[in-house]
Amino acid sequence: MIPTKITPTVLAGGSGSRLWPLSNEATPKQFLRLTSDWSMLQQTLMRFDDTARFKAPMVVCSEKYRELVIEQSAEISCSLSDLLLEPMKRDSAAAIAAAALRAATLDADALLLICPSDHLIHDTSRFTKSVDDAAALAARGYIVTFGVAPTHPETGYGYIRCGAKLEASDGLLVDQFVEKPDAPTACGYLASGRHLWNSGMFMARADVLVEELSKLAPDLLAAIRSAINEGEPADDATPGLKLGSDAFKTAPSISFDYAVMEKSKRTAVVRAHFDWCDLGSWDALADVMAPDTAGNICQGAVATVDVQGSYCRSAGPEVAVIGLENVVVIATESGVLVASKNACQDVKKAVAALSRPKGATELEAEHAGRVNVQ
Amino acid sequence: MIPTKITPTVLAGGSGSRLWPLSNEATPKQFLRLTSDWSMLQQTLMRFDDTARFKAPMVVCSEKYRELVIEQSAEISCSLSDLLLEPMKRDSAAAIAAAALRAATLDADALLLICPSDHLIHDTSRFTKSVDDAAALAARGYIVTFGVAPTHPETGYGYIRCGAKLEASDGLLVDQFVEKPDAPTACGYLASGRHLWNSGMFMARADVLVEELSKLAPDLLAAIRSAINEGEPADDATPGLKLGSDAFKTAPSISFDYAVMEKSKRTAVVRAHFDWCDLGSWDALADVMAPDTAGNICQGAVATVDVQGSYCRSAGPEVAVIGLENVVVIATESGVLVASKNACQDVKKAVAALSRPKGATELEAEHAGRVNVQ
Repeated sequence: MIPTKITPTVLAGGSGSRLWPLSNEATPKQFLRLTSDWSMLQQTLMRFDDTARFKAPMVVCSEKYRELVIEQSAEISCSLSDLLLEPMKRDSAAAIAAAALRAATLDADALLLICPSDHLIHDTSRFTKSVDDAAALAARGYIVTFGVAPTHPETGYGYIRCGAKLEASDGLLVDQFVEKPDAPTACGYLASGRHLWNSGMFMARADVLVEELSKLAPDLLAAIRSAINEGEPADDATPGLKLGSDAFKTAPSISFDYAVMEKSKRTAVVRAHFDWCDLGSWDALADVMAPDTAGNICQGAVATVDVQGSYCRSAGPEVAVIGLENVVVIATESGVLVASKNACQDVKKAVAALSRPKGATELEAEHAGRVNVQ
Repeated sequence: MIPTKITPTVLAGGSGSRLWPLSNEATPKQFLRLTSDWSMLQQTLMRFDDTARFKAPMVVCSEKYRELVIEQSAEISCSLSDLLLEPMKRDSAAAIAAAALRAATLDADALLLICPSDHLIHDTSRFTKSVDDAAALAARGYIVTFGVAPTHPETGYGYIRCGAKLEASDGLLVDQFVEKPDAPTACGYLASGRHLWNSGMFMARADVLVEELSKLAPDLLAAIRSAINEGEPADDATPGLKLGSDAFKTAPSISFDYAVMEKSKRTAVVRAHFDWCDLGSWDALADVMAPDTAGNICQGAVATVDVQGSYCRSAGPEVAVIGLENVVVIATESGVLVASKNACQDVKKAVAALSRPKGATELEAEHAGRVNVQ
């Protein structure tokens, strides 16, 4: 068992345009009941039910999602220890800096388990085992990521090249964080045996995170420190803080991976022994559901004729799919996605092209490639 | 020039489930503005603007579409000579029998030009030339169909095998009407040079139609005669009749082709010199529109990424299509069709499977084939 209890720190800020049209700016994917009666956020929070091991969770999200987070955590009787509301969209470095600073004021040694809110993990006991492995190293001052053994040459994930084994632990040093590879590179990673998928979850002491941020991203840390000082109560019933907008907006929009992980000398990795899936795209979601005999997954008012290997989902309209293989069809009253399964990573491009104010905020139009809009 | 003026007789009874989801029981395809600002019905009526050649048109349709027909004909300042309203769905033999009986009471020699209301014909002057060819033969007592020279081995149309040339005319006897063929048979027809597409339009004298019906479908003719006798005024402002329901419902549901054409000894065919398209399916509709440089036709709020040769149309929702070739995507708020272009003939099956009361009426579930509904 680990020395101190762990503070789960859930990042719920993503807008998830790759799961458009179900996911949009008003209701990003972490709040959707995509795979069960519970939303991805709720499934994430429920992973920390073991009060002997975990403190009450902390959540960082946009202030737009305050009600959604409060409602959805209340629905599963989860009391949050802290709710940090961001006044505008920044990337993960700002969110993690805020969480680390808030936790460190209470307890410098606080062990933070930083989790995105849109990952699917079913095996909670194996998850807990890996968390214990990571906690032991985090307590020693490492920033410990969870690496997932690749099952296929995925091009949608970042990878971790593993280094030397760390003494008296189940962890390894991180040799290098590598960006999302192209297909041949991903095949090489798979063959090497030295590469793990970067799950995006990690553990560290609050003081270690603050220290690394002060070295590697001092401006960002200073901005977030001011935003906390200028903050207001998040909610009457929930402990938390609405971060001060004047200071927060000066924080650079940068991911924690870029700002800290790729530069820090204190990174380690433990193997994730649990099932793990980043539900970042419709084909990933299709992969975790049980298909019918034709290899299709159909949800809602859907009829298929001569369709194989496809994911067809309606949140309202009647949908007919005919004579196609390996397609994804997702329909709501206001939006319809029709994509080849292996092109699901391009949903962002199409959403950007539709010039939806909803999904377009986090998109860079210049990356849109071959897009035609009529 | 022909001896008597022609009475255009427009059949507007179809429910057009193959153009689902735009076309449905409430608004069948003949009332939709599919290819221009005018509906298919309006385009059909406008073909008869030449008052030197044509009398005011007669329309036969379901009483459900009374308002639509009256509105759409008023919109193009077309006065109908007769509006015959069917109290329930029967096939074309009943509709044509009603038109023939009504016309014959006024003028036994009336020349009827029977036209479906969902055909696309742009070249009105060539159309008129073929009508004159047909009228000359119809006046001599023939039932004269319009045969279209096939441009490809279409399996969605019926064919006419042409017989001997008719003296002093541009027509031929009909050797045989043949059903929609399979692909190899269609190739044979194309190669033979003796086969024309059956356009579904034809001309005959009212008394000839009544005589042939009395020989070949006497029960049907008797039922329709009673339905006319029991009829009520169609509308205060429009001449016409709502056919009596008690008698009309006893009329067999059979197409005029089966009931009369295939058995009559008085059938002839003239070549259609005009462009002609039966907009019976989405791929046919795509064929008559101008594609963009990627070979796509996109209408409405549609974004495409890496899409070729496809027809994407939205009547409301935002639609994103990604990484696909030769597909048809048609979206409304209540229905979405996604089909391979060459599977558009199967839309009926899928609509039947969705158990829509709207489109399912004219469908036979037992023909639905490989259909899965969730």
